[in-house]
Amino acid sequence: MSSSFGTILKLSIFGQSHAPAIGMCLDGFPVGFAPDFDALAAFLARRAPGQGDYATARREADTPEFLSGLVGGHTCGAPIAAIIRNTNTQSGDYVNLRDIPRPSHADYPAQVKYGGAQDIAGGGHFSGRLTAPLCIAGGLSLQYLQSKGIQIAAHIAQIGSVCDAPFSQLEPEISMLQGAFPTLDKAKAAQMREEIAAAKADGDSVGGAIACAVVGLPAGIGEPMFGGLENRLAQILFGIPAVKGVEFGSGFDCAGMRGSVHNDPYFMDGERVCTKTNHAGGILGGISTGMPLLFRVAVKPTASIAKQQESVSLSRNCDAALEIRGRHDPCIVPRAVPCVEAAAAIAILDALLEANISV
Amino acid sequence: MSSSFGTILKLSIFGQSHAPAIGMCLDGFPVGFAPDFDALAAFLARRAPGQGDYATARREADTPEFLSGLVGGHTCGAPIAAIIRNTNTQSGDYVNLRDIPRPSHADYPAQVKYGGAQDIAGGGHFSGRLTAPLCIAGGLSLQYLQSKGIQIAAHIAQIGSVCDAPFSQLEPEISMLQGAFPTLDKAKAAQMREEIAAAKADGDSVGGAIACAVVGLPAGIGEPMFGGLENRLAQILFGIPAVKGVEFGSGFDCAGMRGSVHNDPYFMDGERVCTKTNHAGGILGGISTGMPLLFRVAVKPTASIAKQQESVSLSRNCDAALEIRGRHDPCIVPRAVPCVEAAAAIAILDALLEANISV
Amino acid sequence: MSSSFGTILKLSIFGQSHAPAIGMCLDGFPVGFAPDFDALAAFLARRAPGQGDYATARREADTPEFLSGLVGGHTCGAPIAAIIRNTNTQSGDYVNLRDIPRPSHADYPAQVKYGGAQDIAGGGHFSGRLTAPLCIAGGLSLQYLQSKGIQIAAHIAQIGSVCDAPFSQLEPEISMLQGAFPTLDKAKAAQMREEIAAAKADGDSVGGAIACAVVGLPAGIGEPMFGGLENRLAQILFGIPAVKGVEFGSGFDCAGMRGSVHNDPYFMDGERVCTKTNHAGGILGGISTGMPLLFRVAVKPTASIAKQQESVSLSRNCDAALEIRGRHDPCIVPRAVPCVEAAAAIAILDALLEANISV
Amino acid sequence: MSSSFGTILKLSIFGQSHAPAIGMCLDGFPVGFAPDFDALAAFLARRAPGQGDYATARREADTPEFLSGLVGGHTCGAPIAAIIRNTNTQSGDYVNLRDIPRPSHADYPAQVKYGGAQDIAGGGHFSGRLTAPLCIAGGLSLQYLQSKGIQIAAHIAQIGSVCDAPFSQLEPEISMLQGAFPTLDKAKAAQMREEIAAAKADGDSVGGAIACAVVGLPAGIGEPMFGGLENRLAQILFGIPAVKGVEFGSGFDCAGMRGSVHNDPYFMDGERVCTKTNHAGGILGGISTGMPLLFRVAVKPTASIAKQQESVSLSRNCDAALEIRGRHDPCIVPRAVPCVEAAAAIAILDALLEANISV
Repeated sequence: MSSSFGTILKLSIFGQSHAPAIGMCLDGFPVGFAPDFDALAAFLARRAPGQGDYATARREADTPEFLSGLVGGHTCGAPIAAIIRNTNTQSGDYVNLRDIPRPSHADYPAQVKYGGAQDIAGGGHFSGRLTAPLCIAGGLSLQYLQSKGIQIAAHIAQIGSVCDAPFSQLEPEISMLQGAFPTLDKAKAAQMREEIAAAKADGDSVGGAIACAVVGLPAGIGEPMFGGLENRLAQILFGIPAVKGVEFGSGFDCAGMRGSVHNDPYFMDGERVCTKTNHAGGILGGISTGMPLLFRVAVKPTASIAKQQESVSLSRNCDAALEIRGRHDPCIVPRAVPCVEAAAAIAILDALLEANISV
Repeated sequence: MSSSFGTILKLSIFGQSHAPAIGMCLDGFPVGFAPDFDALAAFLARRAPGQGDYATARREADTPEFLSGLVGGHTCGAPIAAIIRNTNTQSGDYVNLRDIPRPSHADYPAQVKYGGAQDIAGGGHFSGRLTAPLCIAGGLSLQYLQSKGIQIAAHIAQIGSVCDAPFSQLEPEISMLQGAFPTLDKAKAAQMREEIAAAKADGDSVGGAIACAVVGLPAGIGEPMFGGLENRLAQILFGIPAVKGVEFGSGFDCAGMRGSVHNDPYFMDGERVCTKTNHAGGILGGISTGMPLLFRVAVKPTASIAKQQESVSLSRNCDAALEIRGRHDPCIVPRAVPCVEAAAAIAILDALLEANISV
Repeated sequence: MSSSFGTILKLSIFGQSHAPAIGMCLDGFPVGFAPDFDALAAFLARRAPGQGDYATARREADTPEFLSGLVGGHTCGAPIAAIIRNTNTQSGDYVNLRDIPRPSHADYPAQVKYGGAQDIAGGGHFSGRLTAPLCIAGGLSLQYLQSKGIQIAAHIAQIGSVCDAPFSQLEPEISMLQGAFPTLDKAKAAQMREEIAAAKADGDSVGGAIACAVVGLPAGIGEPMFGGLENRLAQILFGIPAVKGVEFGSGFDCAGMRGSVHNDPYFMDGERVCTKTNHAGGILGGISTGMPLLFRVAVKPTASIAKQQESVSLSRNCDAALEIRGRHDPCIVPRAVPCVEAAAAIAILDALLEANISV
Repeated sequence: MSSSFGTILKLSIFGQSHAPAIGMCLDGFPVGFAPDFDALAAFLARRAPGQGDYATARREADTPEFLSGLVGGHTCGAPIAAIIRNTNTQSGDYVNLRDIPRPSHADYPAQVKYGGAQDIAGGGHFSGRLTAPLCIAGGLSLQYLQSKGIQIAAHIAQIGSVCDAPFSQLEPEISMLQGAFPTLDKAKAAQMREEIAAAKADGDSVGGAIACAVVGLPAGIGEPMFGGLENRLAQILFGIPAVKGVEFGSGFDCAGMRGSVHNDPYFMDGERVCTKTNHAGGILGGISTGMPLLFRVAVKPTASIAKQQESVSLSRNCDAALEIRGRHDPCIVPRAVPCVEAAAAIAILDALLEANISV
C-alpha cells in the first residue's frame, strides 16, 4: 500500500519480477525539461544485471518505454509513466519457495502478510528488479538537478573487509568516480573484486557500504522535523532492498565524539558562509547548510546464496533444508550504487521543489 | 511544512521553544482506549530537563493539558490534542544568535530558509523541547501497544568511549531496563556518567548511541518498498534533533559479513516460525518477521557547549567568535532514550493499524 | 481520521463541542506575514453565535489564543496553532442522545462508527462549533490572499422560498456585501429574515444557499484531474456541516443548456484574455481561467428543531419520540457565509502555493 | 501534480489522449480477489466511444493490458497497473489549438499553467479519454464491492429539457438499469435521444445530469470533517471532465425546505434502524447511515461543437474565429454514467477500507 514516495514530486512504482512489466509513474516533475535519453540509458546500464563476474547472469535489454508525460521530447506536465517489459523469466526456479522460505528474503513475512496470495516468483514486488523503475525516475531527477548545478555521485565505500578511501568532507572527489565499480582508490577496487570472487567461489555472498555526496545544493533546502532532508533520504533509501543502515556526516562515529570536535566552525569564504569541517554532512535541523551533503548506507550480503541453508516447510510445519537455484549476484553493492544516487536525486528534487514554493 | 507524520495515525507537532505553548494533534488513534495518565506523566518525566548532573538546569512542570479527543477518560475518535505551556523561558539568552549562528545548530540554514523571519529564541521550532509533544503521542502509543502485548524499550548503547552490552538478538533484555539512565550493564552506566561529567567539566559535550527493541510484534506488519518498517522508523527517528544515523539488526556491521553468516536460519519452535540468529533485526522486505525488532540510532554531541567557538557575523559578513550562554545538557543521550521509544511506538502503531485494514 | 485538509497548506482541526477547547494547526502558511488580529476578530464575529433572532442564544467570547507559529507579530514558518476555550457548555442537555439519536444529525452513524465511544455532548467533533477553528485558518488565508489582490466574498443566495439576486458572472458585486446578513438585494434580506422568523415561530428551521465569488485569482492555478480547484473546493466545503451540494458556474443549470450557449466565447481585453460569459465559473479543466471564480453551496435546514420528532431507542430497540432541548439556530445559513469564505480561502491558497512551485 | 486519489486505496492516472498509452496504478486494493475480466470488458465498453449516434465516431479496442498486481488471476498485494494503447489518433486535427484555445476547454488555462509545454493533442492529460483508466480502477472496485453486497448504479437523470423519473429515496430501482443509455423511464430515454439528435443536427451539443445510488453500504462508513463520504465522492467526481455540480440527497432542493420536512424520521425495521424518508441521501456527518446513498452530478454540454465560435489568437493577441474539426460526442452524458459509477466505487471502497482498520 506504500509503493509511493514524495510530497511534490510523487513517485509510484509497480510491477513484480515475473509480471508482464515493471514500471513507474512520476507526477510533479518540472515542466518543459528535455531529458537526454542516451545518458539515461547509460545510467540504467550501471544498474542492469549481467555486467561482470560479481553480477547475476540474467541479461535483459531493460530499455524503458515512456508511455506518457512527454511531448516532442520534453516533459509536458502530465505524469511521466515508463515501463520495462519482463522477458527473461524462469518462474520454474521459484516453485517451492512458497512452502520453504529463503532465509533473509521477504518470502516468509510476505506470506504472513498476504495470506499466501503474494507473487512469489523472483521475489515478486520485493525483487531487487524493482529498482529499475526507481532508476528511471532517479535518472531523470539527476539530469534535472545537474541542469541546476547540483551533482550527486556515490562510490563503493566497503566490500567485506576492504574499505575505500573516504570522501573529503569539504570537497568530495565526485569527478574521480566512473564506471560500474566506482571507488576513489583504484587499488581498493581490485581488492574488493577479489573479495567478491572469493565469496562467489565459496557459493557465498558478501555485503558492503556505499558513500554518496551531493554537491552544489544551496543552503536552506529541507523542512523541519519529519520533513528534513535526513528523514526524506532515509525513507527512500530504505526502499532499496538490502539497505540496513543510513548515516549522515560522521554518523555513528559521532557517538564517540565531543561537541568541541564534532561542531563545524563557521567562516566566511568571501560572501559565502562555510564550515571548516563537515561532520554534519551538510545538514542541520533537517535543512541543507550549503556544504556538501554526505551520507552512507549499509548493504547486507545478497540473501540468495548457493550454499545449502536451514529453513522450514510452512505446509508441513517442520524444519527443512533449502538449496536456492537461479542466478544471483554474489555482491549487490556495485549495482546498488546507481540506485542510491537515483533515490537521493528523487528525495533532493522533491525537497528542492517544496522549498521553492512561493506566492 | 512537514511537522507531521503518519499514514493512518497522523501526528502533527506544533510550537516553538519560547512560544506560548508546544503541543500535538494525533488523529486516527484507536477509539475507546483509556490512557493511564500517571504512567504517561512518569514516561514524560524521563524526557524532562533538570534530572541530574548530565542534564540542563531548566526545570518545568511540563504537564500536558489534553484539550480534545477524550471523553470520560477514554479516546472518543476525535483527534487528540494536548499542549504544554512554556513558562520558564529566558529569551534574552538568545538575542544575538540571529546574527552569529551557533555551530551545528539549525540557526544558519533556518535563517536562509525563512529569510530571517524564523523564531530564533531557544531554537524555535527546531528546539529539542519539541520532543515533549512527540513523547505525549508516543507515550499514548506505547500504552496502546502494551495493551496488545507489544513492548518497546531502549537503552543507552554508548556514551563517548563507553559501550553498554548489546541486546540479545533473540531475547532482548528489556525487563532489565529502568530509570532515567537505562543500561544493561550497571557498571557501564557509572562509566558513562563519568564520561559526561568529564565533558561537562571541560565545558564540552559528548555524543552517544541508543539501542531499541520491539518485542511481541507479530509477523506480517509493514508495507513494501517506501512503506516498510525501516522506512517509517527512520523517517520519524531522524525527526529527533541530534540523530545522525539509524541502523537495523546488524546494521553497518553487515557490510563486513558474508551471506552465510548474516542470513538468519529458520526453524520451527512448536507452531512458530523462528530464526536462530536475528541479524535482520526482525525486518525483511520492510515487513516484520515475528522476531524482536532491533535498531540503533546515533546521537551527536550536544551542539551547545560552553567553550568559545568560531562562527560568523551574518550582518557584518565577517568571522566572529561565539560564546553560548544558557543552560544546556552536556549529553542529550539519556533524555533522548524515551524520545526514541516514543517515535518507535508511533511508527509501529501506524504500521500496525495499516496492516489490519480489511473489509 | 481525516480532520485534515491540504497539500501544501495543511490544516488540522481538533476539538469537540464540549471538550476543554477546540483548535487548529496550520502548517505551510507563508512566512513573514503579519496578520491583522482585529480584522480576524471581526471576521470570526460574523460566525459567532448569538447575533440575532435567527441565531442560537449561546454566547461565547470565542477569542482565539495563538499558541505558536508567530514571533513578533508575524508568521515564522513553524506551524500556526490556535485554540478557543469552551466555556459555556451545558452537557446535561445531551444526556439521552446516545440512546435516542436526533434525526438528520451524525448521532446515529457516529454511534455505529465509534461503537458508542464517541463524544455525544453538543455533537462532539461533528458540531458546527468546529467551524470556528476553520474560520481562524480561513481568516488568516483570506488576509494573505487579499494582500496579493485576491478577494473572496459570499452572499446569502437563498433562504427557504426567497432568492437573492445572482452575482454578475463577469463582475461579481462583492463590494456591496457587508454585515452579518449579506445579500445583494437589501429587500430580499428583509424577506429572508421574515422566513427565518416564521420558521422559528413554528419551532422549525429553514435551509438556504450561499453563493461565493473569488475575484483577482490569476489564470493557471489548480492541478489536473483530482487536484483541480473544483475538487479541492468541494472537498473542503463539504466539511462544513449541513452543506449538501456544491456547484460551479452555471452548475446544475448546465444540464439544460446547449454547448453553443454554455461555452464562454473568448475575446481580448487589451492584453488580457477574457470571456464574454462565465458559465464555467472561472474554472476549466480544474484550472483557473482568470475570470471570477463562482460557486454555490446548498445548506440544509438546521437539524435540531423544537418540534417533537420520530426517532428510535437504540438500547430498547424500539421507536421513540424525541424532543430536543438546548439552543439552536432556526437557520444556519447566515453564520455559514464566513465559513464558506474561509473554506474557499484555504483551498485557494493551497492551490496557489502549489501552482507557484518552481526551481 | 495531483492525478492521484485516495487514502488507503491509492489511484494514480497517467497518459495523454495522443501519448503512446494511458493507464493507471492502483495501490492498496484488497488481496486475493479474482476479477471477472469479461465483466470488466463489458463495463469498459459502456464508456467506450463509437456506440451510437450520440457518441464520437472514434473507435478503439480500448482493451486494458494488466502489467502487474495479479498472479494466477487474483490480486497479489502489489500495485495493480494497467494500460490502454492509443492507436487511433489524428494529431493533425489539433495543430492550431495551441494558438487559438477552444472555448470551455482546458486549452487556455493549461497554456498559462504549463507555459506552452503542455500536450495539446486531443486535450492531452485533460482529455475525457483519461476516464478509461478511471473505469479500469472503478470496474475492479465495483466488482469487489459487489462481492461484499454493495451495488452501485447510475442513470441518466436529465438531458437538456428532458428529465427521467427520480430514484426512490428508500429503494432506488437500480435493477431496472441496463445498457448504454440507462433510464428508469424508457419513454424518457427516447425523448432524450431525440434531444441529442436535434443538438447534433444543429452542430451543437447538450448537457445533462446523472443520478447514482449505492445500495447495501452498511452504516458507519466515512470519516469526520474533510474525510466524509461527501468530501471524498465530490473530490473524485469533479475529476470527471465536464462535471460542474455534485449534490447529495435532496441537494440544492434542501435550500427551500424546512427542517421538519427535510429531517428523516427514524424507525425500527425489526433489528434495523431505518429512516422513513432519505433527504440526507444516506449520509450524515460524512458517515453512512445504512440507507441508500444517493447523489447527482451535473454534466455540462460537450465543449467541442461544430459551430464556429469566438476565440482569440494568443500569438497575435487578437480575436479569432475558431472551427473545431475532429470527432466529438454531441452529448457526453451517456458515456459519463459508467465513469460516475467507477468514481463512486473507488471513493466508497477507499472509505470502506479506512473504516475497517482495527488492531
